[in-house]
Amino acid sequence: MTADLELVEACDNFPYDADTSAYFKVKLPFDDRIHGYMLPEIVQSMPWTPEFKIDHIKRVVQLVDCSNGHDTSTACNTAFSEVVTKAIEIDVFKIISGRHSEPFAIVGAKTPMQVERFAAPLFGFILRGAHMTVYTTESEDMRIWVPRRSGHLFTYPNMLDTTVAGGVAAHESPFENIVHEADEEASLPEELVRERARPCGVLTYMTQVGRSETFAESGLVHPDCIYVYDLEVNRSVIPKPRDEEVKEFYLMTVDEVKVALRRGEFKPNCALVMLDFFIRHGIITADNEKNYIEIIMRMHRRLPFPTAPHR
Amino acid sequence: MTADLELVEACDNFPYDADTSAYFKVKLPFDDRIHGYMLPEIVQSMPWTPEFKIDHIKRVVQLVDCSNGHDTSTACNTAFSEVVTKAIEIDVFKIISGRHSEPFAIVGAKTPMQVERFAAPLFGFILRGAHMTVYTTESEDMRIWVPRRSGHLFTYPNMLDTTVAGGVAAHESPFENIVHEADEEASLPEELVRERARPCGVLTYMTQVGRSETFAESGLVHPDCIYVYDLEVNRSVIPKPRDEEVKEFYLMTVDEVKVALRRGEFKPNCALVMLDFFIRHGIITADNEKNYIEIIMRMHRRLPFPTAPHR
Repeated sequence: MTADLELVEACDNFPYDADTSAYFKVKLPFDDRIHGYMLPEIVQSMPWTPEFKIDHIKRVVQLVDCSNGHDTSTACNTAFSEVVTKAIEIDVFKIISGRHSEPFAIVGAKTPMQVERFAAPLFGFILRGAHMTVYTTESEDMRIWVPRRSGHLFTYPNMLDTTVAGGVAAHESPFENIVHEADEEASLPEELVRERARPCGVLTYMTQVGRSETFAESGLVHPDCIYVYDLEVNRSVIPKPRDEEVKEFYLMTVDEVKVALRRGEFKPNCALVMLDFFIRHGIITADNEKNYIEIIMRMHRRLPFPTAPHR
Repeated sequence: MTADLELVEACDNFPYDADTSAYFKVKLPFDDRIHGYMLPEIVQSMPWTPEFKIDHIKRVVQLVDCSNGHDTSTACNTAFSEVVTKAIEIDVFKIISGRHSEPFAIVGAKTPMQVERFAAPLFGFILRGAHMTVYTTESEDMRIWVPRRSGHLFTYPNMLDTTVAGGVAAHESPFENIVHEADEEASLPEELVRERARPCGVLTYMTQVGRSETFAESGLVHPDCIYVYDLEVNRSVIPKPRDEEVKEFYLMTVDEVKVALRRGEFKPNCALVMLDFFIRHGIITADNEKNYIEIIMRMHRRLPFPTAPHR
């Protein structure tokens, strides 16, 4: 049985006392801040274009704005697009394995900037997701809608998931992401979600990709930020799979969810979202969880990269 | 007008990149972990008893168990009690200024151990509080019960506060603290609180006492941990001052609370509790607060001291 803190540690596993001197620091134009940590072997294998200046002594990857400030966003987006496209063409990294993906915002960039989702962890950039827990308390104890992921998915096939979840693409807000994912993944009506979904905070953690994960290079630094939402519904609202990502939905009791969590049946970051839900709803408390404080601190880790343009 | 992030920074103002080598590290018997940072000038002025071994080279304050493991709790409690009593008698520190206070647990100690509340910041120990926000959504928009502190209080007189709040004494749980404070400070019925108060998490931050604060030595390191609770009530429940701590209660709209926050009318850590309440209830969101992620990370700071006996 996995303890709650171990579930958090599975996601937030980048050491707090890590020696980060070995990493290359990724810097954007006109910005002294560090936006990501890159492994030396990734820097070595990346098919860099001239817009990226690599300082092997100071270990800095500096993106240069070839527009000289005239249109930094477009210049940088093009630079990232070109280098990622080359990397996909020569098929050098497992994590992108020949696949293009949708553009994701570089969190905290001074001018809007984007990189393909699957490629972001190669640079160590923060990724953003949005997760919504749909539950009912009508006429009995709380029950939670839990989906099982499809068997054909590239990551975490057949594992349990958050009711609705997705990555936040560059040109949408976390809330808009939830609205369309709720429709696509769970057939939930847009009006219901717009009216009743409640934003409840954000979870932050930092993962170092492990050797056992077959879909990505070992050691990649993967900082993550998950916007969490709650949606309380009555028993007549029943999520149904629509796209290919969800196999089926279960209406689980809190105890059933706890058992599934402890058996490791949830996708790791969905376990975190569920623990946070249990904490906010008074199910996990200081009285029943000895690691209460540690769990809460760990699921709101202060990331070492900027999360807003101005700081 | 004070921005939300500035309200957080007022509490969480200990630098993240602080050079901590100047502090004396406080260690407990049979425990290699550091439980607090002490200022050198406090170490210099403290009327130490023989149970405390001061290493001025390594900058360690090591409490020794004079019972040799037979009754570590009692031996350590006696040692803390003696040194604090001497300090009060010679009246050497502003923060205790001749006043004894109730025993508070040393968070994360391997065996239960306690020190007087007002003296804890001299050692840099984590202090624990419990805060409950009482609100109503009945038949109109949300309104929140906000008390004004009495004018005679030693700290933050006349400022706005959390509906119910108190420090958690050594021999009570955070929830039991809320139950009795709700009765003492707000005349709220015990049954109502026991049945309906909902634990919603914990806030952690680290304050360095400023020069402007007249009630404490400048520079003291003050890590804090606040257990937060929500209590939704109907309009017939009206908190009333009972003890001397609260002057009066106001039933404020969300907008009125926001204005008061931005004018700096709330006691600093109560502002934090209110921001967390607004975040959990979808009032402050990623769409209306540009520092959303930073605020949430900062109010759940990972404290550098243990928060559980075993880690």
